[in-house]
Amino acid sequence: MKIIILGGDGYLGWPTALHLSNKGHKVLVVDNFIKKKIELEEGVEPLIPQLTISQRIKYWKLLKKKKIELSITDVCDFKSLDRILKRFKPNAIVHYAEQPSAPFSMKNRHNAILTQSNNVLGTLNLLFSMKANCPNAHLIKLGTMGEYGTPNIEIEEGYLDIKHKGRKDTFLFPKNPGSFYHLSKVHDSNNIFFVCKIWKIRATDLNQGIVYGIHTEETKLSENLSTSFHYDEIFGTVLNRFVVQAVNKIPLTIYGTGGQTRGYLNIKDTLNCVELAILNPAKKGELRIYNQFTEYFSVNEIAKKVQRVGNKFGLDVKIKKIKNPRIEKDKHYYKPKHTKLLKLGLKPTYLTDEVLIEIFKEVMKNKKNTNKNKIFPHIKWKAR
Amino acid sequence: MKIIILGGDGYLGWPTALHLSNKGHKVLVVDNFIKKKIELEEGVEPLIPQLTISQRIKYWKLLKKKKIELSITDVCDFKSLDRILKRFKPNAIVHYAEQPSAPFSMKNRHNAILTQSNNVLGTLNLLFSMKANCPNAHLIKLGTMGEYGTPNIEIEEGYLDIKHKGRKDTFLFPKNPGSFYHLSKVHDSNNIFFVCKIWKIRATDLNQGIVYGIHTEETKLSENLSTSFHYDEIFGTVLNRFVVQAVNKIPLTIYGTGGQTRGYLNIKDTLNCVELAILNPAKKGELRIYNQFTEYFSVNEIAKKVQRVGNKFGLDVKIKKIKNPRIEKDKHYYKPKHTKLLKLGLKPTYLTDEVLIEIFKEVMKNKKNTNKNKIFPHIKWKAR
Repeated sequence: MKIIILGGDGYLGWPTALHLSNKGHKVLVVDNFIKKKIELEEGVEPLIPQLTISQRIKYWKLLKKKKIELSITDVCDFKSLDRILKRFKPNAIVHYAEQPSAPFSMKNRHNAILTQSNNVLGTLNLLFSMKANCPNAHLIKLGTMGEYGTPNIEIEEGYLDIKHKGRKDTFLFPKNPGSFYHLSKVHDSNNIFFVCKIWKIRATDLNQGIVYGIHTEETKLSENLSTSFHYDEIFGTVLNRFVVQAVNKIPLTIYGTGGQTRGYLNIKDTLNCVELAILNPAKKGELRIYNQFTEYFSVNEIAKKVQRVGNKFGLDVKIKKIKNPRIEKDKHYYKPKHTKLLKLGLKPTYLTDEVLIEIFKEVMKNKKNTNKNKIFPHIKWKAR
Repeated sequence: MKIIILGGDGYLGWPTALHLSNKGHKVLVVDNFIKKKIELEEGVEPLIPQLTISQRIKYWKLLKKKKIELSITDVCDFKSLDRILKRFKPNAIVHYAEQPSAPFSMKNRHNAILTQSNNVLGTLNLLFSMKANCPNAHLIKLGTMGEYGTPNIEIEEGYLDIKHKGRKDTFLFPKNPGSFYHLSKVHDSNNIFFVCKIWKIRATDLNQGIVYGIHTEETKLSENLSTSFHYDEIFGTVLNRFVVQAVNKIPLTIYGTGGQTRGYLNIKDTLNCVELAILNPAKKGELRIYNQFTEYFSVNEIAKKVQRVGNKFGLDVKIKKIKNPRIEKDKHYYKPKHTKLLKLGLKPTYLTDEVLIEIFKEVMKNKKNTNKNKIFPHIKWKAR
């Protein structure tokens, strides 16, 4: 298949490109380096040194005789995006090209506006270009489990049948997102649902949980293929950050009581899920929605797992509860469904000690790169 | 009270400014003439000639010795907006400053992007400026009943208690908007709900039905105070358009079967509702939502009313069903609640023959200004 990966230089975009290329698909990566730019502005860097994407693509070709195409293009630049779709005529488009950090989006007005304009308007551009150039292509859009928030009812996969005063209807599951970033994904979902209905676009929305891990089958072939692994306040997700804290003998910082429960998945499973979505395209006019995670844990449970494994390495891991910089419930009901991808054949990689040990080893190898000043959260949700 | 009217040059913004000024409030009007610019681009004009807003404000001062302040400012220009809020320190902000046309938003990509960026990012700017300059002010935001679409269950006022598998929670009522314009209002609602929660902003969201009518108590004092009355494809709402068609002996064009049912209200009631919202501010951190309309009718019912009254004027009004340019159900359940504003004391102006006669007379007076080429719908929802 001909597949475009928008945001193909990112933590997930790059390994996805490798994975799909490895499986024999014709892959075109599009990125505008917005995340690299934010890294420079915020003074944060991936823990593990990376080659540039051009160098990685070159290395991949040397190693595997497989070609990945690259286009440095901003999805918000419609004319350039449109030219790409017109020329490449993709069968599937995997859309990761969004500002992915909730704390970044909450830092100030500029960042909130940047996040919602980049994400929402970029996705609108993509939809208009698909309508014109490849109306039968399948959009695989990265959403987030954070769109749902933490409702007091079971979270279904995308849609909810509602009975009210003796009548019923089916709706997009009601959302309650917790940051300007998460809101941008909700706006996207609503826009995509609409264009599926009126233009008969095919789309799959992957409401993804929190991803952890460093390596995939392809990136582990060489350090020349590494993806960007973050542990900082801006881009570091909780488990990845905890391992870096443990290795650096910094207490694991739990925001609030640590009762916040979320869905998690291994980076390897992200690739498997995206591939399953591609191989099982939505029908014309259908917006398919999958809840993409394999297990759920509270932050306390994650911290204890990291502590236990860290202690096996003799690290004497401490845990410290700090005032929650976010506004979120830290004691809540949480029961999200996640059966659709399993039914399609997903074989989950669970968060075992072995999996954690592998992450620890890689982090220890790169410990010297840690910038300890960039871990503690400074961005607050509350108005001052 | 000190009240800012954003979008105070519009069909509803201008009469609102007059009404609140007449009631003794200190009023500041903000507008960037985006609608006037779209009028020029689309070649459409209000039926009734208008003075410029500076001239109208001058006339109002002569007539009533009341001063309305004016600032020509784009809400998307944060620095200018922020200066206004800092200086004026409003108690209430009525926010009409959004691109208001569904067909305009569906015409092409440029318009869709313009609508969502102007509306969503402009509102974000406003929220950030309120947080910094007047965190206790009350935002009165114009939403639309069109955010809900036409669900098969009763539409509550803003929120829905959902029971699911033996558990329950309360959510924003699930939305199903029918255009990029309506989507922009849903995005706004989600953004506002979030900032009420995290910054303790006070807001009231007025999910307004379709407004009809020409005059209010204040505009009828002089033709120098007229508001902009549209009948065209872009800005003309259905009842206003039908009256202009009837007067010009053009068959009333019903889109599809005419079974589309919507909430309606008289322009006088818009002002009364906004005033009631201002006088009953939301609590800190509360997003109040009112369904702002007084009656609901199908398009067929509206057409028959216009036909009956038109025939009293000897106009021999014809009705013509045309292919629906929109994608919407034209046979559906529709039962939206609208009790909150009535409880606050709203005395509705119902759509009687007398009310219609008044509109007919005013349209007949201005018949010569009709541009008959701008009434028939050319903008289609479907992908070509």
